Amino acid sequence: MVASAAIVLAAGQGTRMRSRLPKVLHPLAGRPMLLHVLDALARASVEERVVVTGHGAEQVEAALPDGLAAVRQEPQLGTADAVRVGMTRVPASTRHVIVTSGDVPLLPADLFGALLHEQAEGDAVMALLAARVGDPTGYGRVVRDADGDCRAIVEETDADEATRAIAEINVGCYCFDAAWLRANVGDVPASASGEFYLTDLVALALAAGRRVSVVTAPRAELTIGINDRVALAGAEQLMRREIAERHMRAGVTIVDPSSVRIDAEVQIGQDARIEPGTTLLGASVIGQEAVIGPNAHVVASRIGPRAHVWASIVEEASVGEDAEIGPFSHLRPGAEVGPRCRIGNYAEIKNSRIGAGTQQHHFSYVGDADVGDDVNIGAGTVTANYDGEQKNATLIGDGAFIGSDSMLIAPVTIGAGARTGAGAVVTRDVPPNTTVVGMPARPIELRRRSATTAGEDRNTQTGGGSTP
Amino acid sequence: MVASAAIVLAAGQGTRMRSRLPKVLHPLAGRPMLLHVLDALARASVEERVVVTGHGAEQVEAALPDGLAAVRQEPQLGTADAVRVGMTRVPASTRHVIVTSGDVPLLPADLFGALLHEQAEGDAVMALLAARVGDPTGYGRVVRDADGDCRAIVEETDADEATRAIAEINVGCYCFDAAWLRANVGDVPASASGEFYLTDLVALALAAGRRVSVVTAPRAELTIGINDRVALAGAEQLMRREIAERHMRAGVTIVDPSSVRIDAEVQIGQDARIEPGTTLLGASVIGQEAVIGPNAHVVASRIGPRAHVWASIVEEASVGEDAEIGPFSHLRPGAEVGPRCRIGNYAEIKNSRIGAGTQQHHFSYVGDADVGDDVNIGAGTVTANYDGEQKNATLIGDGAFIGSDSMLIAPVTIGAGARTGAGAVVTRDVPPNTTVVGMPARPIELRRRSATTAGEDRNTQTGGGSTP
Amino acid sequence: MVASAAIVLAAGQGTRMRSRLPKVLHPLAGRPMLLHVLDALARASVEERVVVTGHGAEQVEAALPDGLAAVRQEPQLGTADAVRVGMTRVPASTRHVIVTSGDVPLLPADLFGALLHEQAEGDAVMALLAARVGDPTGYGRVVRDADGDCRAIVEETDADEATRAIAEINVGCYCFDAAWLRANVGDVPASASGEFYLTDLVALALAAGRRVSVVTAPRAELTIGINDRVALAGAEQLMRREIAERHMRAGVTIVDPSSVRIDAEVQIGQDARIEPGTTLLGASVIGQEAVIGPNAHVVASRIGPRAHVWASIVEEASVGEDAEIGPFSHLRPGAEVGPRCRIGNYAEIKNSRIGAGTQQHHFSYVGDADVGDDVNIGAGTVTANYDGEQKNATLIGDGAFIGSDSMLIAPVTIGAGARTGAGAVVTRDVPPNTTVVGMPARPIELRRRSATTAGEDRNTQTGGGSTP
Repeated sequence: MVASAAIVLAAGQGTRMRSRLPKVLHPLAGRPMLLHVLDALARASVEERVVVTGHGAEQVEAALPDGLAAVRQEPQLGTADAVRVGMTRVPASTRHVIVTSGDVPLLPADLFGALLHEQAEGDAVMALLAARVGDPTGYGRVVRDADGDCRAIVEETDADEATRAIAEINVGCYCFDAAWLRANVGDVPASASGEFYLTDLVALALAAGRRVSVVTAPRAELTIGINDRVALAGAEQLMRREIAERHMRAGVTIVDPSSVRIDAEVQIGQDARIEPGTTLLGASVIGQEAVIGPNAHVVASRIGPRAHVWASIVEEASVGEDAEIGPFSHLRPGAEVGPRCRIGNYAEIKNSRIGAGTQQHHFSYVGDADVGDDVNIGAGTVTANYDGEQKNATLIGDGAFIGSDSMLIAPVTIGAGARTGAGAVVTRDVPPNTTVVGMPARPIELRRRSATTAGEDRNTQTGGGSTP
Repeated sequence: MVASAAIVLAAGQGTRMRSRLPKVLHPLAGRPMLLHVLDALARASVEERVVVTGHGAEQVEAALPDGLAAVRQEPQLGTADAVRVGMTRVPASTRHVIVTSGDVPLLPADLFGALLHEQAEGDAVMALLAARVGDPTGYGRVVRDADGDCRAIVEETDADEATRAIAEINVGCYCFDAAWLRANVGDVPASASGEFYLTDLVALALAAGRRVSVVTAPRAELTIGINDRVALAGAEQLMRREIAERHMRAGVTIVDPSSVRIDAEVQIGQDARIEPGTTLLGASVIGQEAVIGPNAHVVASRIGPRAHVWASIVEEASVGEDAEIGPFSHLRPGAEVGPRCRIGNYAEIKNSRIGAGTQQHHFSYVGDADVGDDVNIGAGTVTANYDGEQKNATLIGDGAFIGSDSMLIAPVTIGAGARTGAGAVVTRDVPPNTTVVGMPARPIELRRRSATTAGEDRNTQTGGGSTP
Repeated sequence: MVASAAIVLAAGQGTRMRSRLPKVLHPLAGRPMLLHVLDALARASVEERVVVTGHGAEQVEAALPDGLAAVRQEPQLGTADAVRVGMTRVPASTRHVIVTSGDVPLLPADLFGALLHEQAEGDAVMALLAARVGDPTGYGRVVRDADGDCRAIVEETDADEATRAIAEINVGCYCFDAAWLRANVGDVPASASGEFYLTDLVALALAAGRRVSVVTAPRAELTIGINDRVALAGAEQLMRREIAERHMRAGVTIVDPSSVRIDAEVQIGQDARIEPGTTLLGASVIGQEAVIGPNAHVVASRIGPRAHVWASIVEEASVGEDAEIGPFSHLRPGAEVGPRCRIGNYAEIKNSRIGAGTQQHHFSYVGDADVGDDVNIGAGTVTANYDGEQKNATLIGDGAFIGSDSMLIAPVTIGAGARTGAGAVVTRDVPPNTTVVGMPARPIELRRRSATTAGEDRNTQTGGGSTP
């Protein structure tokens, strides 16, 4: 037996969004707003969720989590008609049915729970959600009786002056007795425009002498419906602020919450510090006492304790404890930077493991490489991993010293403790503890001999790293 | 015949700005505030605009659009005196004269229109603009008669308690019957300080039994005068918010409007998405479904549909459809990046055309170049376009592969399908489908021969691109 | 004789901060909040300041300015007990004792002054600081008598409905008659929990028939206590806004104050312009008419008049007048950039002097160098200052032209007017007005000869700078 189900209305066109994307798919804090509604219902332990689609049905259905029921309303004949269609997918054994909209994305789970509880515990055939707002103009007013139950929903156009003064509005979110809803949803009369409206179900219930109870949302701002992108931006700001406050209360310093974006699933350790202009997206995990920002952009990455990432971009990468990344670094997908590394200015790393304590301080590119511990990577170093056809790997052993402007033509291995001279073009593997110089790079002894042949003396050319 | 004219008062010193720049030239949303006033008057179809200058007259006059009348008030003897001076440039045939201030920059065109209409349609010799504010302290109060017309303007110092409680203030913007103004502006009595004030014209009119009507601004915050830089920052914020909301209502997603600056003339296509920390300046044009930001800075540039520009700077450049720019890229003036290009980390392009599908993924500099389609530009590539005396051009043919750290010493041509080895210093043209290596770079066959002469084998050195 | 002293309570644990750092050490505008309190007291000319520590005493004491008295409260038995402990360090000759909290960091100096004055000038044994707030829930209410003096402090739990309606709350900041305090602080009765509370001193005074006067804070928002990081972020925002407004009123344009952070000690010249997303930290000094930002991060640096720094990071560095830095530049500690320099994209400078008018436009690294006037530093240039063991110096003379991708292997000197070819690896000093090319670089005449020997012609290789 299913105790509770929810019908989520997602058929509307949302013309005021002026978008090719269906309204309920517009993202909020990085996810389609419809998914926020479905998540909140799931957290409220609503067992069955049915999405009623219409405009843009294919796009909306494609965005739904696997296994979630969707049913199309065609043609779109109003909200009551959409609920009628939705009920065809609600299991017969269901006792309570929440009806809510895919474009009211901030309703918290506990509000759905309160609505369920209100309807389930009493004899009301429906409980409706109300909100007290500063300016109720344009909304349906909730008229209460002496017991505090709903006596009527009066639309703006039908309201006299006294009713217009009522500041409590109908949010458009309800919990119904399932049997009553099933029996009555088909009886809603058509409006002048030929559409069927959910608010007329309230009138039906009241006319039949049934009780309609009211739950007032404690925070009216969370009942907002998204009708245009100005409202969308407002909802985004509210949601971001909620997330930031949750982290702050848990022991994270966020210097300027208004300039920071944190996705819902991000985890942040205690005493971490988020500096202004920072974005933490996806399922990123930030370690204790890490300092992120200013101006860091971290996507789906793991940052170790006490690491510092600033003025840099980290995407699908990991950073070890006590490492420093930035400024102007870019860790691309697959970059795994070890503990205590210093990755500096204009350093780019892609799909590479970097060992502990390694330094890459300056403009340089390391891709498809495995770099050991305590390596020094000089300014201008490039792992030339692409030959125009495929990508090749570079291996650099522990303690190697890669001189400035070294080109490492992959596939190539630089042995532990080896050195490359400034400007070296390394086309062959370098044995451990060997120094190579030149273009192409050769071990320094060999070069000296051949250079001598050519009347040259290159033996002063072994330097060439660069440093903080 | 000129139906309407406007006199814009711009003679004041603005000492509280504490600036060497005359107050009315301080920029708001990128333009001197005086120009916002002149624009709004033009949009209200005011035919003749006269600017009265005084302090900093030369600077102010230099900032005016061509053909706009300016007249100097010397000495500066108050606002009524300034209007008297301004009237010397108002055509005799003018019927209605708006008087407003160059430091009240947010008044919208339709408010000037409403003021004109109010004065022109009735028998009032002047219509004045009023605003209802939360705290009227310090402003002249508008006292109304039973018909809603102005009965008096009472300054703070002359106001009794009842008058002080009036929340409607005089903005200092008027529309006059031109003939009446011309006849009476010289009759304003001198104040104790020897200056002549416009508000005394109201008293003159009322004393003569003439009607003074009132237009109340629907949005009082737009009537703000800029007296210091705190007010300037507030006006900037209001103006930015207006612009952002206009785009959002037209179908542009702006994730965090408070962190975004968009200049007034920017155009943005539907379903474009503006991420946080982004600045769109000048006459930039953003295509449909483009994603700009986070942290993009776009100045006077054209971004194609579906392109993505992030964490980068684009100045007087163009980006083709579906291209990706960033992070940490800089497109400088004259950069024309083709469709589907990928311009990546620390890539700088100046005064160059880049063909379709070309990739420049890493730190590199391309200047004064013409680059074909589907070219790969390796990490560290430099078009050495400057020889210390002049700038020279680089041409790169379709499908060329520029190896890592290639120096292209301009003027030079790299043929279609040609390749340069890592570290190549290319001083001569490279024929199509030819590979060059070395310093200076030579075709690989030639080098092998000469290298052999020198006892070397360089033939493994052809690799060296790098890739995403 | 010491006229006034202050006891600053800093013993609390601050569990709602959820931090390993003691609450009073959490930074606000870059400094521990406790130091803001101590500074304000110093500005109010309070002669002796005593900090009472408890939880985290060692950390707190380590953060105190030299010479400041600290005394430990062990065990922590409430605020009155803390004051009793603090009094052991207050000189006997003291006449007035301010008591305030280390977690109420925004109280301005003049408010301490007003409190001192109120207590010192009359016959009250104590003056307490009150604030009128929108929602007094949870705070002790200040009940006044007919003279406006305090008749009682009533805690929330003890308040009847009428008292709860009082919007004036007790901030927890007092000025006492020193003799009275010393005589009475030991007489505070223990609370049910065994702790001793300061508010009970008020009751003691009133019961003894002594006068307790009240000073109301003109700006209630500055009386906020920091109990969690949400409050911390709010205080940060308030403090930042105050600082920004101070600069704006002094003649600095701040385009979007909400996106800008300026530390308290930063100095900014008139008509400087601070663009959005900019951070000015430490004791930075910004010259007149400089433009900083957008997105500049300046730490403890000096920026000259009319210089422009944008999208760059400047740390412990100096920038001369009329210089342009950025975008994407990094001036690291010890960078001294001369007047009229152009330091551009991805240029990094560390511990180096750069002469007037020098250009470094592209990706490059200059470290431990002394660079003359009017030098051109080509793209890809690296001063290879680190040989794996120590750092070495590079000297570049006036008017030198460093070709693209030049490696300057330090220690090395490039003479005035000398040139390096593209890709040159410079391992030896270059005499003035000499051109060197190749790897290793040699004067061009020498190379031509030896190159000829090897069947090569390198004489076209002298170009290779790059330019804006």
